[in-house]
Amino acid sequence: MKRIGFIGLGIMGFPMASHLLEAGYELTVYNRTTEKSMKLQEKGANVATSAAQVASESEVVFTMLANSDVVEDVIFGENGVVEGATDGLIVINCSTVSPESNIKLHDKLKESGIIFLDVPVTGSGVQANAGTLTFMCGGNHDVYEKCIPLFEAMGKKHFHMGDIGAGSYTKLANNTMLAINMMSLAEAIVMVAKCGIDPETFVEVVSGGGSKSAMAEAKTPKIVSRDFSPNFKTSLMLKDVNLALDLAKDISVVTPILALSKEILNIGVSMGVGEEDLCAIVKCYESWGMTKVR
Amino acid sequence: MKRIGFIGLGIMGFPMASHLLEAGYELTVYNRTTEKSMKLQEKGANVATSAAQVASESEVVFTMLANSDVVEDVIFGENGVVEGATDGLIVINCSTVSPESNIKLHDKLKESGIIFLDVPVTGSGVQANAGTLTFMCGGNHDVYEKCIPLFEAMGKKHFHMGDIGAGSYTKLANNTMLAINMMSLAEAIVMVAKCGIDPETFVEVVSGGGSKSAMAEAKTPKIVSRDFSPNFKTSLMLKDVNLALDLAKDISVVTPILALSKEILNIGVSMGVGEEDLCAIVKCYESWGMTKVR
Repeated sequence: MKRIGFIGLGIMGFPMASHLLEAGYELTVYNRTTEKSMKLQEKGANVATSAAQVASESEVVFTMLANSDVVEDVIFGENGVVEGATDGLIVINCSTVSPESNIKLHDKLKESGIIFLDVPVTGSGVQANAGTLTFMCGGNHDVYEKCIPLFEAMGKKHFHMGDIGAGSYTKLANNTMLAINMMSLAEAIVMVAKCGIDPETFVEVVSGGGSKSAMAEAKTPKIVSRDFSPNFKTSLMLKDVNLALDLAKDISVVTPILALSKEILNIGVSMGVGEEDLCAIVKCYESWGMTKVR
Repeated sequence: MKRIGFIGLGIMGFPMASHLLEAGYELTVYNRTTEKSMKLQEKGANVATSAAQVASESEVVFTMLANSDVVEDVIFGENGVVEGATDGLIVINCSTVSPESNIKLHDKLKESGIIFLDVPVTGSGVQANAGTLTFMCGGNHDVYEKCIPLFEAMGKKHFHMGDIGAGSYTKLANNTMLAINMMSLAEAIVMVAKCGIDPETFVEVVSGGGSKSAMAEAKTPKIVSRDFSPNFKTSLMLKDVNLALDLAKDISVVTPILALSKEILNIGVSMGVGEEDLCAIVKCYESWGMTKVR
């Protein structure tokens, strides 16, 4: 498979598509706005004028889009993937959407002879740029194996988690941990800061033991330098937490800490940090505690 | 300083005292029950019959005890440390107690010419045995520096966090993260397990990204092998969470996720996992979700 399509060239999609180009694939891209497409054209990508055109010129099409409505529209809408697809096309959805939505897409595409994998990724723009994403695949195992070189071109690790939907299950549980580990850091760092402890020394201490977390190590430097530019926006964290809570309800598991984390993210968004990085949630805690980490 | 005393030879204290012996210090120990003392005697320790005797034969006395009542009793009670202390004795309290209690001990001991440091540790029995504890010191900086060889004999890292109380502030914030990161794992792992995802593969995926945590990596093997033997008991986690919540109230910071974690630990203890490892909290989630991780 040499002819690859990519739809959605945002913070994640643009660097992912770039890595495919660098790995030597014949890449056809489509994005709603054309600026990003033009940048890839300079590097050798074909720019399509529709998702249908991407599909007609590709053996595998990746989608990396904001939510399930956009994914469905790009696939089934006017000039969508289905209109251009040839038999045996593989569509790989890397967007974070509900498992339910991915299972529906899979079943509907099967009727048109299109193979579908749900393959969300862990990692933000930083990892996408560095080519260190982790791919979590749900769907046919043979198809997954055929696509491994593509995952390796864009990321560091890839896992087959189970049937269709399993990628999304994994991703939502992963982001459950992401949200809660962020709250864990926010509550602790505001506590020590108000006690007069240096927050960076605190995280160094934490990193020597059982409380060590990637979240504490990644976000503390941002918090102390008041750099709330988004690697992963608070509003998107809230979106994913809502999807995870929907899943928990669907499968009847109880997630009280996640539910309360959602409320705090809601407060964060209403306090205006939705477009900032997830770690800006610390500002809520600072305002409640009438203190500042730095 | 060559003559060291150690009071409290439990899961933590026994291996810590052993490391001091191995490092060549003249060690005098005292424990309420004598079995552990006898084991150290075989290795060359002097066994005292009271805390006062430990103090009279030592330049530095460590206490590693269950709670502040026991610490106060051992120091100020009949045949306590104060009764045997010579001028300039250094008392280092490694027990996790409230910062308030450590500050009170410090002030009261100062009147008797005894120097006091609050130096809780991160790490459980596993790290105490391996000599990889982290020491968090509150108190006089010069005294801290004099004691560094002792910390190095028992652990891997040591930090001076600030004035008296700062060790405890750090420890309680650290354990805030510990408790919340445990809930994070419990909610996510039960979610994926009920979706049919292999929990160990899930944690491998998580470890590739921003949700990575020492908690997930340490506890998942215990959970999947149903080994709930305590490295750190749920009841002690609850004790520390209560201390952290008291601190949060005292300094007026808001910790809603910690507060809810306390309630879940309360449920855990009432469901009978108090004497089991912290990770046994997953059993509550399993029962609520009518599922099992394995």
